[in-house]
Amino acid sequence: MLTMRSLSLLASCLILSSLAITACAEEPPGAEWRKPDPANLLYMQLESGTVVIELAPAFAPNTVANIKTLVREKYFDGLAVIRSQDNYVAQWGDPAEDEADVRPIGTAAESIAPEFQRPLEGVALSRIDSRDAYADVVGFADGFPAASDGKQVWLTHCYGMLAVARGMEPDSGNGTSLYVVTGHSPRHLDRNLAVVGRVLDGVDKLSSLPRGTNGPLSFYASREEMAPIISIRLGRDVAKENQLNIEIMRADSNAFADYVKSRTFRNEDFFVEPTGRIGICNLNPPTRLVE
Amino acid sequence: MLTMRSLSLLASCLILSSLAITACAEEPPGAEWRKPDPANLLYMQLESGTVVIELAPAFAPNTVANIKTLVREKYFDGLAVIRSQDNYVAQWGDPAEDEADVRPIGTAAESIAPEFQRPLEGVALSRIDSRDAYADVVGFADGFPAASDGKQVWLTHCYGMLAVARGMEPDSGNGTSLYVVTGHSPRHLDRNLAVVGRVLDGVDKLSSLPRGTNGPLSFYASREEMAPIISIRLGRDVAKENQLNIEIMRADSNAFADYVKSRTFRNEDFFVEPTGRIGICNLNPPTRLVE
Repeated sequence: MLTMRSLSLLASCLILSSLAITACAEEPPGAEWRKPDPANLLYMQLESGTVVIELAPAFAPNTVANIKTLVREKYFDGLAVIRSQDNYVAQWGDPAEDEADVRPIGTAAESIAPEFQRPLEGVALSRIDSRDAYADVVGFADGFPAASDGKQVWLTHCYGMLAVARGMEPDSGNGTSLYVVTGHSPRHLDRNLAVVGRVLDGVDKLSSLPRGTNGPLSFYASREEMAPIISIRLGRDVAKENQLNIEIMRADSNAFADYVKSRTFRNEDFFVEPTGRIGICNLNPPTRLVE
Repeated sequence: MLTMRSLSLLASCLILSSLAITACAEEPPGAEWRKPDPANLLYMQLESGTVVIELAPAFAPNTVANIKTLVREKYFDGLAVIRSQDNYVAQWGDPAEDEADVRPIGTAAESIAPEFQRPLEGVALSRIDSRDAYADVVGFADGFPAASDGKQVWLTHCYGMLAVARGMEPDSGNGTSLYVVTGHSPRHLDRNLAVVGRVLDGVDKLSSLPRGTNGPLSFYASREEMAPIISIRLGRDVAKENQLNIEIMRADSNAFADYVKSRTFRNEDFFVEPTGRIGICNLNPPTRLVE
């Protein structure tokens, strides 16, 4: 649990370490990193490169299962990024969704009961000491940024998070259209859509796309303007040599507590006013590529 | 002043208005919009189009004056966007800054005493009812997002804000290198750099640039990768027919209070959990183009 207490412990630890360097080695080397389950990874192949996403089945089990079905049945192959709205989202799906040649969804479900939040019970939420504008409590769960009102918990719409687009009906989001946050975190969307994952690598392939020009939601005006999706695959179905050997810092590790502390207190010489405060979306669990 | 009180007044106003529509017309039509002073506008011409920025002299008078000197003397013409870091900033300046052929700064000052914050006294801060992660009080001043500790006030690093890059020395930012926030608001930079304006139009020309690949700060690796700056001009020096006839909603207007309310309560049918809360960087004073 990352609380002010653990931050203090860490601070004491750092002081102690000048006396005896190994005094606070509570975790064996490397234990602060976790390898994501390839069954929960998406590899999205664009012409510009690959976007690697970790799914969050604990938060939206039926929605994530449906996305995996769509991916296994190659639903997305040949579809496109259909929208890029500045300071908001990049969204992909079927460009023909309003036309006669809409792509069939195979064995996937057409609608899914909303999974916008879930009971807090059973979720290990590593709390962050932050005065959050949108929620009583914020922290990390399974390495994803999350918020809670003490009863329910939900993933937050931070930059790089993946969520499921939907129509007016809350159960209309089935995973055939997905979006990634590419601007200042639109936290008002929390608990109104299913947040289902986080981009681990290649978010710039989405965030640097030209913006769409069709209306206030910035869809692309024509198919020619859209970035085609070559394929989306589950990580476990990607050839071994093409898999990214990526690791994510565990949010319940001392290393992460140290990371949060460094982002909160900004003791680097550059800062004349180290803030001493932090926002949940200003923290991103660090990733590393392993040789 | 935009306070909870004025929000309540507005709410009463809306209820009253079903009885008598003109009951709360406290401002004449159009009074909620202001036309920015062309002397405080920058027109940045890129190959992809124009970025229009409003400067904030009340917050950084010497820095803004120096930027205007640089612009008048055409310092930026032929320079380039030298950095694009995902989820952070796009920065421009002299690509040759570490080489012998560095561009001379003319009559502009080489260094400027820090203008990272200013006394609250004399600033009309329209407060927003928001639990902010980084500051005790947030609101809008002169139409710019701002924060305060009750004594000092400073512009906040929200998406689309313009600020002055600097080296390790606090007085080293003279305006020759500027950046615009293009990701989740890096509020830890508040009070550590001079925030000097806000992009009114064309921020996508900066935010959708390919990201730089040179090191962790994502500078561009070569001149060829950089977007050239054709010119930067003060609005008042732009030919009348090329001036954008833009207006900005006044943050001290009833219309803006209504805007804040609509962004806070999200009563549209789409929302199943209207948040009832708001973040300062989730509000952008609306702009409109006038025919």
